[in-house]
Amino acid sequence: MSWVEGAAGSPYGVHNLPYGVFVQAGRGPRIGVRIGDLVLDLDGAEAAGLLLAGGALRRPTLNAFLALGHPQWTTVRRRIVELLTGQEHRPAVEPLLIPLDRVDLVLPFEVADYVDFYSSEQHAGNVGKIFRPGAAPLLPNWRHLPVGYHGRAGTVVVSGTPIIRPQGQRSTPDGPVYGPSTRLDIEAEVGFVVGVPTSLGQRVAVEDFAAHVFGVVLLNDWSARDIQAWEYQPLGPFLGKSFATSVSSWVVPLEALADAWVPAPTQEPAVLDYLRDVPHLGLDLRLTVDWNGDRVSEPPFDGMYWTPAQQLAHLTVNGAALRTGDLYASGTVSGPRRDQVGSFLELTWGGAEPVKLSDGSTRTFLLDGDTVRIGATAPGPDGTSVGLGEVAGTIAPAQPT
Amino acid sequence: MSWVEGAAGSPYGVHNLPYGVFVQAGRGPRIGVRIGDLVLDLDGAEAAGLLLAGGALRRPTLNAFLALGHPQWTTVRRRIVELLTGQEHRPAVEPLLIPLDRVDLVLPFEVADYVDFYSSEQHAGNVGKIFRPGAAPLLPNWRHLPVGYHGRAGTVVVSGTPIIRPQGQRSTPDGPVYGPSTRLDIEAEVGFVVGVPTSLGQRVAVEDFAAHVFGVVLLNDWSARDIQAWEYQPLGPFLGKSFATSVSSWVVPLEALADAWVPAPTQEPAVLDYLRDVPHLGLDLRLTVDWNGDRVSEPPFDGMYWTPAQQLAHLTVNGAALRTGDLYASGTVSGPRRDQVGSFLELTWGGAEPVKLSDGSTRTFLLDGDTVRIGATAPGPDGTSVGLGEVAGTIAPAQPT
Repeated sequence: MSWVEGAAGSPYGVHNLPYGVFVQAGRGPRIGVRIGDLVLDLDGAEAAGLLLAGGALRRPTLNAFLALGHPQWTTVRRRIVELLTGQEHRPAVEPLLIPLDRVDLVLPFEVADYVDFYSSEQHAGNVGKIFRPGAAPLLPNWRHLPVGYHGRAGTVVVSGTPIIRPQGQRSTPDGPVYGPSTRLDIEAEVGFVVGVPTSLGQRVAVEDFAAHVFGVVLLNDWSARDIQAWEYQPLGPFLGKSFATSVSSWVVPLEALADAWVPAPTQEPAVLDYLRDVPHLGLDLRLTVDWNGDRVSEPPFDGMYWTPAQQLAHLTVNGAALRTGDLYASGTVSGPRRDQVGSFLELTWGGAEPVKLSDGSTRTFLLDGDTVRIGATAPGPDGTSVGLGEVAGTIAPAQPT
Repeated sequence: MSWVEGAAGSPYGVHNLPYGVFVQAGRGPRIGVRIGDLVLDLDGAEAAGLLLAGGALRRPTLNAFLALGHPQWTTVRRRIVELLTGQEHRPAVEPLLIPLDRVDLVLPFEVADYVDFYSSEQHAGNVGKIFRPGAAPLLPNWRHLPVGYHGRAGTVVVSGTPIIRPQGQRSTPDGPVYGPSTRLDIEAEVGFVVGVPTSLGQRVAVEDFAAHVFGVVLLNDWSARDIQAWEYQPLGPFLGKSFATSVSSWVVPLEALADAWVPAPTQEPAVLDYLRDVPHLGLDLRLTVDWNGDRVSEPPFDGMYWTPAQQLAHLTVNGAALRTGDLYASGTVSGPRRDQVGSFLELTWGGAEPVKLSDGSTRTFLLDGDTVRIGATAPGPDGTSVGLGEVAGTIAPAQPT
């Protein structure tokens, strides 16, 4: 039980403790951990000798801390719990607590490589039906490997960053034209943050997932469907995605999600040995998608066909090295029902079925000024709920050219 | 005329001066510039006050120097020329020259994002003919935009790094199997190194190419064709490429290639305005590909359909930010003749037409122990030749799993 006011019963109690980086009062970025609606200044805590992480918590990003690895992640987490629960620590710790509304949260880690998977059967099936009507919705490889590709690491931005409507080429009956995207979409996803690197040629077995992955972020892989549709063959998405990918401000440690593991969907046909995870577990994260404040979808992460451990094993099976700060995302999270999809492409069935918002307006894709907020919770210990923060963005008009 | 012995007449004379990073005698990485068969220790030169770059030359990678931008790149270059030509500087400078065979060259810059284009009409056409016989060799978008995708920045390695044969899934008539790639290939390419970054939402016009791009490397985008063929739909190449991408040790500044610009192929249909470069110029780089010492191909870079300025304009047209250290590659360089292709897929026409090496053996794809060296030269001032160094790699056996 934390002595911090508002922590008990909060999805950000001592059972959660997500890490972020904040700026406040003109000072440079500092690492903090969220408790209730406050942030504990870990830079200050390490400076004061309240916890020890070899200086890793006194940096402007989480990367050095992420690189420390599992034993140290656990040690620091335990110490933070002590500090926030032991009354004897209160006099020293309380001055290091800052209300969240007095800080600005920045990108919590420097992204090394960014990979995006495509691991929801419902999403891949919906996209197949929309773009290849009449054909088999899933391509032949889909059940044999977690399909994925590399995105642009340099345009991963923190929640709240305005999303400037991208411009580019799209195809029309009269040939390609240039202009602002007219089919700007979201992809509600979950991202996994790599802490412990590997050497070139080394692979990460499915059972070693938790030795390398530190935690989880929410992620919105903003997508310009018109640009993407014209450019993507044969080498995959490029400018339709690379203008911005938003992540939540808080990285929730896997240790906070220990109660959220649930059996993942049965895989048929059986996967090759290197992808076999026993037990075969996914995370019971319950996502929400709000469009201008209206709840339009509640994508369930527990139905993802490929698990994060399988994704990491696949990503490295060819000997690709991992770096601290590597980020890989699940792919759009969609459930079987229309009110469980993770993209507006699916919600409006390719734009053919507009949705009505509570202000009386209708939407197919995003308009300038629209705001999308993706949130999530997971089951925590003893009936608690673990909050994953949110990833939000508002569409800004295309820039004059 | 340089006072350095062996510089005159060398493709690495004072008209070239490529930058690299070396280690020697147990000391950490230092920036150097190549002159003849020597490296000038620029860390030592800046430490001694022989040239001034605000400390940017005293770092373990080129990134800080790359970020300085065009006026400083020029100032430093001019000063290095003075140091290497003025006899009065010889006493101070000569002790800073180290024979190349006494240093090890390391990755010269930290790669931010890595993008690979697909801009040779002959290569794209050959791949189309091999993989989609009977269909139009080029897809509808190909003449309208430089097709490209993001690769893995974390597995870009310096020339000489052993290339471990990747393992992964490939398709067989009996279903997918796991094992070492049996169709390991090269892609001979030219890479462009970004120095000056941009902000999110900013685009780089074709005419601003030289304000952002510092220089050129040779690049081998090693490719496992069997893994790639099975995985790449619909999101593009992933593990078939991400195990290793080799770059040359030396970054040749664009300033050394001023005499290498030549008219690029006419583009028909006309490109959209944002891709129109006037004059429409490519680089007359003459590549060579040696397979176990046998010259098997001489790919001509001057025939590339899309120019590096068009590639950069396209890459940023959606507002994607550039970072210092961004690397974008041309795509496989192939000319119209079989002895001008930049991949073994094309050289052996999908493996159907093996090549005979001078030792009497034959090859379709790479065997363990094979070495590939890609080199290039360009025309320099006054009839000189500018050397681009080489990118070399030897195939090591797949690692036990």
